[in-house]
Amino acid sequence: MQNAPMHDVVVVGAGLAGLSAARQLTAEGLDVLVLEARDRVAGRNEGAVFRNGVPVELGGQWVGPGQDAVLALIAELGLQTFQVYDAGRSVLRIDGGLRYAEGGAFGLPDTALAEFTRVQELIDDLAAAVDPADPAAGPGAAEQDRVTADAWLRENVRDEAARRFYDIMLATIFAADTCEFSLLHLLFYVRSGGGLVRLMSTIGGAQDSRVLGGTHRISEAMAEQLGPRVRLRCPVRHLEQEEGGVRVHFDGGAVRARRVIVALPPVLAGRLRYSPPLPANRDSLTQQMPAGTVIKFQVAYERPFWRETGFSGTALNLDGHVGLVYDNCPPDASCGVLVAFIEGTHARDAADLTPEQRRQLVLAELAGLFGPEAAEPLDFLERNWSEEEYTRGCYGGRLGTGLWKRLGRSLREPVDRLHWAGAETAEVWNGYMDGAVTSGRRAAAEAAAALAAEPAGSGAVAAGVSTVAGTGSA
Amino acid sequence: MQNAPMHDVVVVGAGLAGLSAARQLTAEGLDVLVLEARDRVAGRNEGAVFRNGVPVELGGQWVGPGQDAVLALIAELGLQTFQVYDAGRSVLRIDGGLRYAEGGAFGLPDTALAEFTRVQELIDDLAAAVDPADPAAGPGAAEQDRVTADAWLRENVRDEAARRFYDIMLATIFAADTCEFSLLHLLFYVRSGGGLVRLMSTIGGAQDSRVLGGTHRISEAMAEQLGPRVRLRCPVRHLEQEEGGVRVHFDGGAVRARRVIVALPPVLAGRLRYSPPLPANRDSLTQQMPAGTVIKFQVAYERPFWRETGFSGTALNLDGHVGLVYDNCPPDASCGVLVAFIEGTHARDAADLTPEQRRQLVLAELAGLFGPEAAEPLDFLERNWSEEEYTRGCYGGRLGTGLWKRLGRSLREPVDRLHWAGAETAEVWNGYMDGAVTSGRRAAAEAAAALAAEPAGSGAVAAGVSTVAGTGSA
Repeated sequence: MQNAPMHDVVVVGAGLAGLSAARQLTAEGLDVLVLEARDRVAGRNEGAVFRNGVPVELGGQWVGPGQDAVLALIAELGLQTFQVYDAGRSVLRIDGGLRYAEGGAFGLPDTALAEFTRVQELIDDLAAAVDPADPAAGPGAAEQDRVTADAWLRENVRDEAARRFYDIMLATIFAADTCEFSLLHLLFYVRSGGGLVRLMSTIGGAQDSRVLGGTHRISEAMAEQLGPRVRLRCPVRHLEQEEGGVRVHFDGGAVRARRVIVALPPVLAGRLRYSPPLPANRDSLTQQMPAGTVIKFQVAYERPFWRETGFSGTALNLDGHVGLVYDNCPPDASCGVLVAFIEGTHARDAADLTPEQRRQLVLAELAGLFGPEAAEPLDFLERNWSEEEYTRGCYGGRLGTGLWKRLGRSLREPVDRLHWAGAETAEVWNGYMDGAVTSGRRAAAEAAAALAAEPAGSGAVAAGVSTVAGTGSA
Repeated sequence: MQNAPMHDVVVVGAGLAGLSAARQLTAEGLDVLVLEARDRVAGRNEGAVFRNGVPVELGGQWVGPGQDAVLALIAELGLQTFQVYDAGRSVLRIDGGLRYAEGGAFGLPDTALAEFTRVQELIDDLAAAVDPADPAAGPGAAEQDRVTADAWLRENVRDEAARRFYDIMLATIFAADTCEFSLLHLLFYVRSGGGLVRLMSTIGGAQDSRVLGGTHRISEAMAEQLGPRVRLRCPVRHLEQEEGGVRVHFDGGAVRARRVIVALPPVLAGRLRYSPPLPANRDSLTQQMPAGTVIKFQVAYERPFWRETGFSGTALNLDGHVGLVYDNCPPDASCGVLVAFIEGTHARDAADLTPEQRRQLVLAELAGLFGPEAAEPLDFLERNWSEEEYTRGCYGGRLGTGLWKRLGRSLREPVDRLHWAGAETAEVWNGYMDGAVTSGRRAAAEAAAALAAEPAGSGAVAAGVSTVAGTGSA
């Protein structure tokens, strides 16, 4: 054990954040090892294949304009994107009836649509004033932090249908109900992604395009470049500070590193063991930045039958469990695919059903939106991300009332030789693939700068002793 | 490993809950083993001794009328209680000035006191309607669950001083700011403890009495009775379901059990590894039932100088970091002791200070309340419970908006052969020592009933296989 191999940096987690960090550090000539718990890379980007051979994503699947880092990375890795299909009429289910609309009108009644737009502009104005580097610092932040998004919406949205629309639409963005995060978290997230309409939109927005073959190919391509620097089936359990570095214990072994980048969602980072234990405020953050709650369904049909009657495949459902549906066909439309989401409280209810009950529930609601053909799929895949031991919820972590102000600083602040990456730590496109990529690079830059400032060998040992002692006395 | 010893029940955690469970099961003739991570028992009841030999508590320290289970246990174990000192004038610091009062008047101005009382009666009325067995089931529960206690107070308390008083007073009860828990959680907790005045009060309330020698002696006395059935320095890391039982892996070994009682706070329970992984909703609960944030100070003086000028030692401070102070002298008043608390957001600020800075801060605020003598202690002890690796926050876990309704059921619901104990799972005196004791007994009864229903030997194996398979397919 004493002679476990010493790396410049060990990265915990081979999702987009961890692999982006490792790739950057490797390019700078540093010796990096990535330890991944699963038998695959890509974390919340999991690929699957329908029985007919069409690839599809069980996790994060969209990229869009403004996500410059991930789009450049995709191009650099030789992968291709294609725009989603969203032509024709969308469907809104409300009060037991269906309403149809072209473009971005959602099918809301005129008064509700006007109120939606007024509030959207208000949210965007408030969001524009938030500093994404320090959301708790703004002039209105103290008040925005202590109020739930739900409470704010109930006070500010003056139309019942518009309010219900916001509840469901925001639940689809956060995979959480609006009473589960603060107004400040909503505003920060909107600011981070460049506006509410962008977060909501397919074409031109955050759901604009997909990666040919699946988003997991981004991580796979990076892992191929990193080669033996990525080790699968190595769940890290314990990070132990010692003289001159950190001993990283995983199932079946241990390695040493001068710096460690923990590229896990905050909840999972909080479940590692640390010696010495993490400071109170960092640990406290990991106790209360829960992951979202979402079950994702990919449903294959012989053909995209909804297109034939002028439907886009986009649906928002204010009545049922399935909140949001999109057309998710392959670019050649060789088969039809609908992607459907159950989120927030509905996902918790649905988690208690059997897989067959959930299938029946989803197909019945799809049939209610698109007609009886939707109940006769070729294939049906689901993923409840809250069940995944090495993810425990999607899309990203959120902060409830009071927490940005009290604990936000602990999101990124390094602890001894530990640096924190992951989509939750991003300033720009927080919670998205783009944010994951830039978070990994930010943590890599931190680690590289720390290594450059610290002479290797005896100098590193001395620095290590001093850092550890400083924490021990806290 | 295959032949690791098999126990009827393994209990994880030797706090009041775990030891109460083990004691009851042992009395029923079952073979029990308690595994404790620390080198001591008693969990959140930690004893300490001033340099002058006077014992004092770094954690939970009071019992009171209505806490029948813990009071009976104390008597049964041959321990003694003594009532606290709370005679004379209390101090309220507000707007930079000091106000004094006798009895329960707190020194609030008359209008503020009247408003405090009106709202207290309103809270007690609402709380009385909550079913502590299922807080989310009540008629007003959906609305109470989605609103923070803070938002409700701002809407309902019509006097500024009364509102600030509520903010600090509730922070001292929950070790959290009022925006960090839901109105329903407040009402449940008040109902669980038998009324707001009871939770706030010394004489006749939840802070009525102490245990001679310290509350940790309750756990120590139970551990003595259990003898070798309690093993210290055995941090449990992994609970693995297998044929006929659970394999319990701890640092340095493994044992097997037909049933396991996890007697840890929800956060720490969520940090164990489970095979198969826990169901989505149970895991999700552990992601968002954070522990409170409190730093407790025990300050010794030559004599209780405040008593000499007619002060009780009780102080509530609306201006500073220290929110609450009580007289905490030994029964013979052989020295003076003040106990002081920094809670919620103030505790997070104070966690970033050095121990010496914190000492200066606390002594300065005590001097502001009780005069310059308070700045000259004989001895000074502190415990930041959020720093404790095997506690990570006091007093208890709380639920934010939306969570009682969505995840409350997962608090106690067994998973396969695993049962959940701990003060957070109690219906009566939730979060208090009394609740910890009854929670352990409730989990013990569950485990004993399950064992009685399941024939030992091959029958147990068959039942085990079926249970595990049921989870695997979920």
